[in-house]
Amino acid sequence: MKSPSLQKLIDCFAKMPSIGSRTSERMALYVTRAKKEDIQILLKAIQNVCDQVKQCKICHHLSEQEVCSICSNSQRDSQVICVVEQSGDLMAIEKTDSFKGVYHVLEGILSPLDGVGPSDINVGTLMNRLKNNQVKEVIIATNPTSNGEATASYVFKAVKSLAKEIRVSRIGFGVAIGSELSYVDKFTMARSLELRTKLV
Amino acid sequence: MKSPSLQKLIDCFAKMPSIGSRTSERMALYVTRAKKEDIQILLKAIQNVCDQVKQCKICHHLSEQEVCSICSNSQRDSQVICVVEQSGDLMAIEKTDSFKGVYHVLEGILSPLDGVGPSDINVGTLMNRLKNNQVKEVIIATNPTSNGEATASYVFKAVKSLAKEIRVSRIGFGVAIGSELSYVDKFTMARSLELRTKLV
Repeated sequence: MKSPSLQKLIDCFAKMPSIGSRTSERMALYVTRAKKEDIQILLKAIQNVCDQVKQCKICHHLSEQEVCSICSNSQRDSQVICVVEQSGDLMAIEKTDSFKGVYHVLEGILSPLDGVGPSDINVGTLMNRLKNNQVKEVIIATNPTSNGEATASYVFKAVKSLAKEIRVSRIGFGVAIGSELSYVDKFTMARSLELRTKLV
Repeated sequence: MKSPSLQKLIDCFAKMPSIGSRTSERMALYVTRAKKEDIQILLKAIQNVCDQVKQCKICHHLSEQEVCSICSNSQRDSQVICVVEQSGDLMAIEKTDSFKGVYHVLEGILSPLDGVGPSDINVGTLMNRLKNNQVKEVIIATNPTSNGEATASYVFKAVKSLAKEIRVSRIGFGVAIGSELSYVDKFTMARSLELRTKLV
Protein backbone atom coordinates (compact mmCIF):
# COMPACT_ATOMS: atom_id res chain seq x y z
CA MET A 1 0.00 0.00 0.00
CA LYS A 2 2.98 2.27 0.61
CA SER A 3 5.13 3.30 -2.29
CA PRO A 4 8.57 1.63 -2.25
CA SER A 5 10.49 4.88 -1.81
CA LEU A 6 8.24 5.89 1.07
CA GLN A 7 8.78 2.51 2.74
CA LYS A 8 12.54 2.87 2.27
CA LEU A 9 12.52 6.26 3.99
CA ILE A 10 10.35 4.91 6.83
CA ASP A 11 12.93 2.15 7.35
CA CYS A 12 15.77 4.71 7.39
CA PHE A 13 14.07 6.86 10.05
CA ALA A 14 13.18 3.79 12.12
CA LYS A 15 16.91 3.08 12.55
CA MET A 16 17.28 6.26 14.60
CA PRO A 17 17.14 6.10 18.39
CA SER A 18 13.72 6.66 20.06
CA ILE A 19 11.98 6.37 16.68
CA GLY A 20 9.37 3.64 16.45
CA SER A 21 7.44 2.51 13.42
CA ARG A 22 4.62 5.02 13.87
CA THR A 23 6.87 8.01 14.34
CA SER A 24 9.02 7.04 11.36
CA GLU A 25 5.85 6.80 9.26
CA ARG A 26 4.73 10.26 10.37
CA MET A 27 8.20 11.64 9.65
CA ALA A 28 8.18 10.17 6.15
CA LEU A 29 4.73 11.64 5.51
CA TYR A 30 6.10 14.98 6.68
CA VAL A 31 8.75 14.71 3.97
CA THR A 32 6.04 14.22 1.33
CA ARG A 33 4.16 17.28 2.59
CA ALA A 34 7.01 19.64 3.48
CA LYS A 35 8.08 22.54 1.31
CA LYS A 36 10.90 21.77 -1.15
CA GLU A 37 13.06 24.45 0.52
CA ASP A 38 12.63 22.86 3.94
CA ILE A 39 13.70 19.50 2.56
CA GLN A 40 16.75 21.04 0.92
CA ILE A 41 17.64 22.67 4.25
CA LEU A 42 17.25 19.30 5.99
CA LEU A 43 19.43 17.48 3.45
CA LYS A 44 22.09 20.18 3.72
CA ALA A 45 21.97 20.06 7.53
CA ILE A 46 22.54 16.30 7.59
CA GLN A 47 25.37 16.57 5.09
CA ASN A 48 26.97 19.44 7.04
CA VAL A 49 26.94 17.51 10.27
CA CYS A 50 28.63 14.61 8.51
CA ASP A 51 31.22 16.81 6.85
CA GLN A 52 32.00 19.29 9.58
CA VAL A 53 31.37 17.77 12.97
CA LYS A 54 34.39 15.93 14.30
CA GLN A 55 35.81 15.19 17.72
CA CYS A 56 37.55 17.68 19.95
CA LYS A 57 41.13 16.44 20.14
CA ILE A 58 41.23 17.06 23.89
CA CYS A 59 37.91 15.78 25.26
CA HIS A 60 36.36 13.91 22.26
CA HIS A 61 33.19 16.03 22.41
CA LEU A 62 31.59 16.82 19.05
CA SER A 63 33.00 20.00 17.59
CA GLU A 64 33.57 21.78 14.31
CA GLN A 65 36.94 23.02 15.49
CA GLU A 66 40.04 21.05 16.46
CA VAL A 67 39.36 22.00 20.07
CA CYS A 68 35.76 22.35 21.25
CA SER A 69 34.25 25.52 22.68
CA ILE A 70 34.36 24.11 26.21
CA CYS A 71 38.02 23.07 26.18
CA SER A 72 39.04 26.36 24.56
CA ASN A 73 37.05 28.46 27.05
CA SER A 74 39.48 29.99 29.53
CA GLN A 75 36.61 30.65 31.95
CA ARG A 76 36.14 26.93 32.50
CA ASP A 77 38.10 25.20 35.24
CA SER A 78 40.35 22.72 33.46
CA GLN A 79 41.38 21.23 36.80
CA VAL A 80 38.00 19.52 37.17
CA ILE A 81 37.18 16.90 34.53
CA CYS A 82 33.76 15.30 34.28
CA VAL A 83 33.86 11.90 32.56
CA VAL A 84 30.77 10.95 30.53
CA GLU A 85 29.86 8.08 28.23
CA GLN A 86 28.81 10.16 25.26
CA SER A 87 28.27 13.69 23.97
CA GLY A 88 24.53 13.50 24.70
CA ASP A 89 25.30 13.10 28.41
CA LEU A 90 27.62 16.11 28.27
CA MET A 91 24.80 18.17 26.74
CA ALA A 92 22.43 17.08 29.52
CA ILE A 93 24.93 18.31 32.12
CA GLU A 94 25.60 21.55 30.23
CA LYS A 95 21.86 22.31 30.29
CA THR A 96 22.04 22.64 34.08
CA ASP A 97 24.44 25.58 33.70
CA SER A 98 25.91 24.51 37.00
CA PHE A 99 29.14 22.78 36.02
CA LYS A 100 32.08 25.02 35.29
CA GLY A 101 34.76 22.39 34.72
CA VAL A 102 35.62 20.52 31.52
CA TYR A 103 34.68 17.09 30.18
CA HIS A 104 36.07 13.87 28.86
CA VAL A 105 33.83 11.83 26.57
CA LEU A 106 34.60 8.10 26.75
CA GLU A 107 32.55 7.42 23.62
CA GLY A 108 31.50 4.08 24.94
CA ILE A 109 31.32 1.99 28.01
CA LEU A 110 33.02 -1.19 29.18
CA SER A 111 30.90 -4.10 28.08
CA PRO A 112 32.68 -7.47 28.26
CA LEU A 113 29.71 -9.28 26.70
CA ASP A 114 29.94 -7.08 23.60
CA GLY A 115 33.73 -7.33 23.59
CA VAL A 116 34.24 -3.68 24.53
CA GLY A 117 37.35 -3.37 26.70
CA PRO A 118 39.32 -0.40 28.09
CA SER A 119 41.23 0.07 24.83
CA ASP A 120 37.97 0.59 22.94
CA ILE A 121 36.93 3.63 24.96
CA ASN A 122 38.78 6.92 25.47
CA VAL A 123 40.44 6.05 28.78
CA GLY A 124 44.00 6.29 27.43
CA THR A 125 43.55 9.91 26.37
CA LEU A 126 42.07 10.68 29.80
CA MET A 127 45.19 9.29 31.46
CA ASN A 128 47.36 11.43 29.18
CA ARG A 129 45.38 14.52 30.18
CA LEU A 130 45.90 13.69 33.84
CA LYS A 131 49.63 13.13 33.31
CA ASN A 132 50.22 16.32 31.38
CA ASN A 133 47.98 18.71 33.28
CA GLN A 134 47.30 19.81 36.79
CA VAL A 135 43.98 18.10 37.56
CA LYS A 136 42.38 18.26 41.01
CA GLU A 137 39.20 16.27 40.54
CA VAL A 138 37.68 13.71 38.20
CA ILE A 139 33.88 13.44 38.44
CA ILE A 140 32.58 10.19 36.98
CA ALA A 141 29.17 10.67 35.37
CA THR A 142 28.60 7.34 33.61
CA ASN A 143 25.04 5.97 33.69
CA PRO A 144 23.78 4.03 36.74
CA THR A 145 23.65 0.75 34.76
CA SER A 146 25.79 -2.30 35.44
CA ASN A 147 28.16 -1.45 32.58
CA GLY A 148 28.17 2.20 33.65
CA GLU A 149 29.08 1.25 37.20
CA ALA A 150 31.78 -1.15 35.98
CA THR A 151 33.23 1.64 33.85
CA ALA A 152 33.09 4.05 36.80
CA SER A 153 34.94 1.56 38.94
CA TYR A 154 37.56 0.99 36.20
CA VAL A 155 38.13 4.72 35.70
CA PHE A 156 38.36 5.23 39.48
CA LYS A 157 41.11 2.60 39.79
CA ALA A 158 42.95 3.84 36.71
CA VAL A 159 43.03 7.44 38.01
CA LYS A 160 44.06 6.40 41.50
CA SER A 161 46.88 4.17 40.24
CA LEU A 162 48.16 7.09 38.17
CA ALA A 163 47.91 9.81 40.81
CA LYS A 164 46.64 9.18 44.32
CA GLU A 165 46.19 12.88 45.05
CA ILE A 166 43.50 13.41 42.42
CA ARG A 167 40.05 13.39 44.01
CA VAL A 168 37.70 11.02 42.17
CA SER A 169 33.98 11.42 42.72
CA ARG A 170 30.76 9.92 41.37
CA ILE A 171 27.61 11.93 40.64
CA GLY A 172 24.84 11.58 43.25
CA PHE A 173 21.98 9.12 42.81
CA GLY A 174 18.60 9.16 44.51
CA VAL A 175 15.05 10.39 44.23
CA ALA A 176 14.55 12.74 41.26
CA ILE A 177 13.47 16.28 42.11
CA GLY A 178 9.72 16.70 41.63
CA SER A 179 8.94 12.99 41.71
CA GLU A 180 6.71 11.25 44.24
CA LEU A 181 8.22 8.77 46.66
CA SER A 182 5.41 6.26 46.13
CA TYR A 183 6.40 5.94 42.46
CA VAL A 184 10.14 5.61 43.00
CA ASP A 185 11.58 2.17 42.20
CA LYS A 186 13.14 0.22 45.06
CA PHE A 187 16.73 0.41 43.80
CA THR A 188 16.62 4.19 43.58
CA MET A 189 14.91 4.38 46.97
CA ALA A 190 17.57 2.16 48.57
CA ARG A 191 20.34 4.25 47.00
CA SER A 192 18.64 7.41 48.19
CA LEU A 193 18.61 6.13 51.80
CA GLU A 194 22.19 5.01 51.56
CA LEU A 195 23.32 8.39 50.21
CA ARG A 196 21.29 10.43 52.71
CA THR A 197 22.88 13.73 53.72
CA LYS A 198 22.94 15.10 57.22
CA LEU A 199 20.84 18.17 57.85
CA VAL A 200 22.58 20.85 59.87
CA MET B 1 27.98 24.08 23.72
CA LYS B 2 26.60 22.45 20.57
CA SER B 3 28.31 23.03 17.28
CA PRO B 4 26.27 25.30 14.96
CA SER B 5 25.72 22.62 12.32
CA LEU B 6 24.54 20.17 14.95
CA GLN B 7 22.11 22.76 16.33
CA LYS B 8 20.83 23.44 12.82
CA LEU B 9 20.13 19.74 12.26
CA ILE B 10 18.42 19.45 15.66
CA ASP B 11 16.16 22.35 14.64
CA CYS B 12 15.35 20.64 11.32
CA PHE B 13 14.37 17.37 12.98
CA ALA B 14 12.32 19.20 15.61
CA LYS B 15 10.05 20.52 12.86
CA MET B 16 8.83 16.99 12.16
CA PRO B 17 5.63 15.74 13.77
CA SER B 18 5.93 13.84 17.09
CA ILE B 19 9.56 14.94 17.41
CA GLY B 20 10.36 16.91 20.55
CA SER B 21 13.61 18.60 21.47
CA ARG B 22 15.11 15.53 23.16
CA THR B 23 14.34 13.16 20.33
CA SER B 24 15.65 15.59 17.73
CA GLU B 25 18.87 15.85 19.73
CA ARG B 26 19.22 12.07 19.87
CA MET B 27 18.53 11.85 16.13
CA ALA B 28 21.20 14.45 15.37
CA LEU B 29 23.68 12.59 17.55
CA TYR B 30 22.79 9.45 15.61
CA VAL B 31 23.81 11.27 12.43
CA THR B 32 27.23 12.06 13.94
CA ARG B 33 27.73 8.41 14.91
CA ALA B 34 26.17 6.59 11.96
CA LYS B 35 28.16 4.99 9.18
CA LYS B 36 28.77 7.19 6.12
CA GLU B 37 26.93 4.64 3.94
CA ASP B 38 23.85 4.76 6.16
CA ILE B 39 23.77 8.54 5.94
CA GLN B 40 24.09 8.43 2.16
CA ILE B 41 21.19 5.95 2.06
CA LEU B 42 19.13 8.28 4.28
CA LEU B 43 19.88 11.34 2.11
CA LYS B 44 18.99 9.39 -1.03
CA ALA B 45 15.78 8.09 0.55
CA ILE B 46 14.64 11.61 1.44
CA GLN B 47 15.50 12.89 -2.03
CA ASN B 48 13.72 9.94 -3.69
CA VAL B 49 10.54 10.53 -1.75
CA CYS B 50 10.61 14.18 -2.81
CA ASP B 51 11.31 13.37 -6.43
CA GLN B 52 9.16 10.30 -6.97
CA VAL B 53 6.21 10.33 -4.61
CA LYS B 54 3.28 12.22 -6.00
CA GLN B 55 -0.48 12.01 -5.69
CA CYS B 56 -2.67 9.35 -7.26
CA LYS B 57 -4.76 11.23 -9.79
CA ILE B 58 -7.88 9.36 -8.71
CA CYS B 59 -7.78 9.26 -4.91
CA HIS B 60 -4.90 11.67 -4.02
CA HIS B 61 -3.08 8.97 -2.02
CA LEU B 62 0.71 9.07 -2.18
CA SER B 63 1.99 7.04 -5.09
CA GLU B 64 4.93 6.72 -7.44
CA GLN B 65 2.61 5.96 -10.36
CA GLU B 66 -0.09 8.13 -11.90
CA VAL B 67 -2.65 5.83 -10.32
CA CYS B 68 -1.90 4.25 -6.94
CA SER B 69 -1.72 0.53 -6.28
CA ILE B 70 -5.11 0.56 -4.54
CA CYS B 71 -7.02 2.36 -7.30
CA SER B 72 -5.39 0.19 -9.97
CA ASN B 73 -6.12 -3.06 -8.11
CA SER B 74 -9.04 -4.78 -9.81
CA GLN B 75 -9.62 -6.90 -6.70
CA ARG B 76 -10.71 -3.83 -4.76
CA ASP B 77 -14.32 -2.80 -4.77
CA SER B 78 -14.42 0.60 -6.46
CA GLN B 79 -18.08 0.99 -5.55
CA VAL B 80 -17.20 1.63 -1.92
CA ILE B 81 -15.13 4.76 -1.23
CA CYS B 82 -13.68 5.51 2.18
CA VAL B 83 -13.01 9.23 2.68
CA VAL B 84 -10.03 10.11 4.91
CA GLU B 85 -8.28 13.32 5.88
CA GLN B 86 -4.78 12.26 4.91
CA SER B 87 -2.65 9.40 3.62
CA GLY B 88 -1.55 8.46 7.15
CA ASP B 89 -5.19 7.67 8.01
CA LEU B 90 -5.48 5.53 4.89
CA MET B 91 -2.39 3.56 5.99
CA ALA B 92 -3.92 3.01 9.43
CA ILE B 93 -7.04 1.54 7.82
CA GLU B 94 -5.03 -0.57 5.37
CA LYS B 95 -3.16 -2.14 8.31
CA THR B 96 -6.40 -3.76 9.44
CA ASP B 97 -6.55 -5.73 6.19
CA SER B 98 -10.32 -5.61 6.54
CA PHE B 99 -11.36 -2.93 4.04
CA LYS B 100 -11.61 -4.02 0.43
CA GLY B 101 -12.96 -0.83 -1.10
CA VAL B 102 -11.04 2.21 -2.35
CA TYR B 103 -10.20 5.56 -0.80
CA HIS B 104 -10.42 9.28 -1.30
CA VAL B 105 -7.87 11.42 0.51
CA LEU B 106 -9.22 14.91 1.27
CA GLU B 107 -5.73 16.18 2.10
CA GLY B 108 -7.09 18.49 4.69
CA ILE B 109 -10.10 19.25 6.76
CA LEU B 110 -12.59 22.09 6.90
CA SER B 111 -11.30 24.64 9.36
CA PRO B 112 -13.03 28.02 9.15
CA LEU B 113 -10.71 29.54 11.77
CA ASP B 114 -7.69 28.69 9.61
CA GLY B 115 -9.47 29.81 6.46
CA VAL B 116 -9.74 26.29 5.04
CA GLY B 117 -12.97 25.94 3.07
CA PRO B 118 -14.43 23.22 0.82
CA SER B 119 -12.43 24.40 -2.20
CA ASP B 120 -9.16 23.85 -0.30
CA ILE B 121 -9.74 20.14 0.24
CA ASN B 122 -10.32 17.41 -2.33
CA VAL B 123 -14.13 17.39 -2.22
CA GLY B 124 -14.57 18.47 -5.84
CA THR B 125 -12.66 15.47 -7.17
CA LEU B 126 -14.73 13.21 -4.91
CA MET B 127 -17.91 14.59 -6.46
CA ASN B 128 -16.49 13.97 -9.93
CA ARG B 129 -15.74 10.36 -9.00
CA LEU B 130 -19.31 9.92 -7.78
CA LYS B 131 -20.71 11.48 -10.96
CA ASN B 132 -18.64 9.41 -13.33
CA ASN B 133 -18.69 6.05 -11.58
CA GLN B 134 -21.15 3.64 -10.09
CA VAL B 135 -20.63 4.15 -6.34
CA LYS B 136 -22.80 2.39 -3.76
CA GLU B 137 -21.37 3.64 -0.51
CA VAL B 138 -19.22 6.45 0.85
CA ILE B 139 -17.70 5.74 4.28
CA ILE B 140 -16.56 8.91 6.03
CA ALA B 141 -13.50 8.28 8.17
CA THR B 142 -12.45 11.77 9.21
CA ASN B 143 -11.16 12.17 12.79
CA PRO B 144 -13.61 12.56 15.69
CA THR B 145 -12.57 16.19 16.27
CA SER B 146 -14.81 19.20 15.80
CA ASN B 147 -13.29 19.98 12.41
CA GLY B 148 -13.41 16.31 11.47
CA GLU B 149 -17.11 16.12 12.36
CA ALA B 150 -17.84 19.33 10.47
CA THR B 151 -16.08 17.91 7.43
CA ALA B 152 -18.00 14.64 7.76
CA SER B 153 -21.24 16.57 7.88
CA TYR B 154 -20.25 18.66 4.84
CA VAL B 155 -19.27 15.59 2.80
CA PHE B 156 -22.49 13.83 3.81
CA LYS B 157 -24.62 16.72 2.56
CA ALA B 158 -22.58 17.12 -0.62
CA VAL B 159 -22.92 13.43 -1.51
CA LYS B 160 -26.64 13.36 -0.71
CA SER B 161 -27.36 16.46 -2.78
CA LEU B 162 -25.54 14.85 -5.70
CA ALA B 163 -27.07 11.39 -5.50
CA LYS B 164 -29.63 10.42 -2.88
CA GLU B 165 -29.22 6.70 -3.57
CA ILE B 166 -25.60 6.55 -2.43
CA ARG B 167 -25.37 5.20 1.10
CA VAL B 168 -23.22 7.47 3.29
CA SER B 169 -21.85 6.05 6.53
CA ARG B 170 -19.53 7.15 9.31
CA ILE B 171 -16.98 4.86 11.00
CA GLY B 172 -18.01 3.61 14.45
CA PHE B 173 -16.85 5.34 17.62
CA GLY B 174 -16.72 3.89 21.10
CA VAL B 175 -14.55 2.07 23.59
CA ALA B 176 -11.26 0.91 22.08
CA ILE B 177 -10.69 -2.85 22.03
CA GLY B 178 -8.41 -3.90 24.90
CA SER B 179 -8.96 -0.76 26.95
CA GLU B 180 -10.49 -0.60 30.42
CA LEU B 181 -13.82 1.12 30.92
CA SER B 182 -12.65 2.93 34.05
CA TYR B 183 -10.03 4.77 31.97
CA VAL B 184 -12.31 5.72 29.08
CA ASP B 185 -13.09 9.45 28.80
CA LYS B 186 -16.71 10.51 29.23
CA PHE B 187 -17.25 11.63 25.63
CA THR B 188 -16.15 8.27 24.26
CA MET B 189 -18.21 6.46 26.91
CA ALA B 190 -21.32 8.50 26.03
CA ARG B 191 -20.79 7.80 22.33
CA SER B 192 -20.28 4.14 23.05
CA LEU B 193 -23.65 3.97 24.87
CA GLU B 194 -25.39 5.89 22.13
CA LEU B 195 -23.95 3.58 19.45
CA ARG B 196 -24.71 0.37 21.36
CA THR B 197 -25.55 -2.62 19.16
CA LYS B 198 -28.26 -5.12 19.91
CA LEU B 199 -27.13 -8.60 20.84
CA VAL B 200 -29.06 -11.36 19.16
